[in-house]
Amino acid sequence: MTMHIINAIQKRLKRRKIDALLVSQPDNRFYLSNFSARDHSISESSGYLLIPKSGTPLLLTDFRYQIQAEQEAGFFDVLIYKRGLFKILERLLPSLGIHTLAFEAHYFLFNQAEKLRHICHKHLVNLLPTSNLVERMRLIKTSHEIDLIKRSVQLNEHVFQEVYPSICANDTEIDVALRLENAMRAYGSEGPSFDTIVATGPNGAKPHAVPSRTKIIPGVPLIIDMGLILAGYCSDMTRSVVLGSPTPKTINIFRIVRKAQLAGMESIKAGAICKDVDSAARSIISDAGFGACFGHSLGHGVGVAVHEEPRLGPRCHKKLQSDMIVTVEPGIYIPDWGGVRLENMVLVTRNGHQNFNKNLTFLDI
Amino acid sequence: MTMHIINAIQKRLKRRKIDALLVSQPDNRFYLSNFSARDHSISESSGYLLIPKSGTPLLLTDFRYQIQAEQEAGFFDVLIYKRGLFKILERLLPSLGIHTLAFEAHYFLFNQAEKLRHICHKHLVNLLPTSNLVERMRLIKTSHEIDLIKRSVQLNEHVFQEVYPSICANDTEIDVALRLENAMRAYGSEGPSFDTIVATGPNGAKPHAVPSRTKIIPGVPLIIDMGLILAGYCSDMTRSVVLGSPTPKTINIFRIVRKAQLAGMESIKAGAICKDVDSAARSIISDAGFGACFGHSLGHGVGVAVHEEPRLGPRCHKKLQSDMIVTVEPGIYIPDWGGVRLENMVLVTRNGHQNFNKNLTFLDI
Repeated sequence: MTMHIINAIQKRLKRRKIDALLVSQPDNRFYLSNFSARDHSISESSGYLLIPKSGTPLLLTDFRYQIQAEQEAGFFDVLIYKRGLFKILERLLPSLGIHTLAFEAHYFLFNQAEKLRHICHKHLVNLLPTSNLVERMRLIKTSHEIDLIKRSVQLNEHVFQEVYPSICANDTEIDVALRLENAMRAYGSEGPSFDTIVATGPNGAKPHAVPSRTKIIPGVPLIIDMGLILAGYCSDMTRSVVLGSPTPKTINIFRIVRKAQLAGMESIKAGAICKDVDSAARSIISDAGFGACFGHSLGHGVGVAVHEEPRLGPRCHKKLQSDMIVTVEPGIYIPDWGGVRLENMVLVTRNGHQNFNKNLTFLDI
Repeated sequence: MTMHIINAIQKRLKRRKIDALLVSQPDNRFYLSNFSARDHSISESSGYLLIPKSGTPLLLTDFRYQIQAEQEAGFFDVLIYKRGLFKILERLLPSLGIHTLAFEAHYFLFNQAEKLRHICHKHLVNLLPTSNLVERMRLIKTSHEIDLIKRSVQLNEHVFQEVYPSICANDTEIDVALRLENAMRAYGSEGPSFDTIVATGPNGAKPHAVPSRTKIIPGVPLIIDMGLILAGYCSDMTRSVVLGSPTPKTINIFRIVRKAQLAGMESIKAGAICKDVDSAARSIISDAGFGACFGHSLGHGVGVAVHEEPRLGPRCHKKLQSDMIVTVEPGIYIPDWGGVRLENMVLVTRNGHQNFNKNLTFLDI
């Protein structure tokens, strides 16, 4: 698969008269090369790709990652830099005959771009900022990727189902989050695809709550937002569950969110406008009087990154296409009370969608 | 403490005739505001600080983090943006009378900086790239910070000592890493300060190894590089241990690395040049014939970030100052055999250093 994607990139480079593309975005790096090292931060990169318009692509990294890079990035020549990216680029630009170099303007630090500009100027290389060249390829999943993502979703559900029955009122949010993350690893995933959210009662009013030492409160919603990485591909799912008997208010909010989710999912098909999908779900929440309590977008793409394009938001005018994979995750958040969010992952098809989530725990109450 | 630091920043801004500083670097954001939300990635920021040269500083964030921001960032006015940073800046620049705006060129994406430039141009605001303005303050720790970091180191050692006796030949690297990370959380830390490294035998030859399903190999070194975050402050420690009896080769390598570490630590005091400290340790490894097997720097600063300035590397000409905190972590890595790395954290003092690590497990064999 990888070589096929490299060829497609090289074709695009030729068409745009670009001699080489410097890839700094870590998800793009993995997508193209299979080199799975992660970056501690954008200022501590574990490596860069240099994709020439033809010939063997290069993986530039340092001493610490040499063995891993050579093991994983089979299609790439691995070059080790001792004194950082810029020194090795100064050597490579002339030796590879690069006259026009593209870089990822959406994932390159301002001060690093100044250095790159300086080097290019010195070597008479035309430096071209590009945005989302690789991300646009990542939008549409190959059948191999669809299979991997489906397996990631299935394992994530399996983990949830194993841990869910064990949750009790004596657990803290952190206890539950740890059990989930341990199970992810125990069942063979590389680990969570984002910090697992376990938020009980009022904590659930924060859509990005961090698990705390609060004990699970019976009767009110407990939000569990979890995802894992399996063979490099992410899953993302939210369940809201209740210990003990839900109150009438809880049941009411649940039903509104679930109705919104089903409406959102139903409106998905190739050709649908992202904002219309968002609106199909949002209008149900608004009509029920909770419009102000749903402050985020309806969903987002998932692939090698857990958050990627397309965004299913009220201001996104893009069209969905077949073989995109998106989340559908409406929520209602009420300060001091809590929140309910329900999230599935679906494949966009020509006539509709395929829901990857089979688990229905507490979805229909 | 926080207000004191804000005042110091504001003084610097006035001196440099800057009306406001936009803070995008997440460690700087926490350091100045106490707002502890983390960023999923640089392109998904959980918020920005806008520090005017006088008056109340602002924390700009979105809906999802409102409650947390108001709870944590006591000295700040919290403003919620609905349509991102740039829209709210367009409103704030004129209303706050900002004519010169500084931004963090070392943690701002190239394409975002282009947008910022555009907005500033429109509002006749002079845009000034700065680098490391806040980082320079973070270099020297206050007594409160020194205390927090010491506690972080002590807890990290405690976790190691609790888990170390349980390690057996039936464990995989992942098993050990999970036990360590669970213990970190169980004992009250926010979690690991970086992905825990557990690398047995040949895997230890990769300084940034990722724990695998390989079982711990007796007789050869097992590298455990671990750190945690406690009250926002990081620790970082490496131990190399052996299950069963070490081979003569293992003992020999261990002793060289330990001798290098002690020499590095001994050369630390206020006024010492970073590269000289690196060299004090490195020369021992080189003299023993393993110079080519020690490919990274001797150490780095630690604080709210696990990797920060100063860097104890062969090309760093800066001087150490009192109340800096650095790691000392020489290593020898031999492909197909494995590695030994030993890492302590020390405080730089006027006449020498204070070693925060008390644990001696397997240090002197």
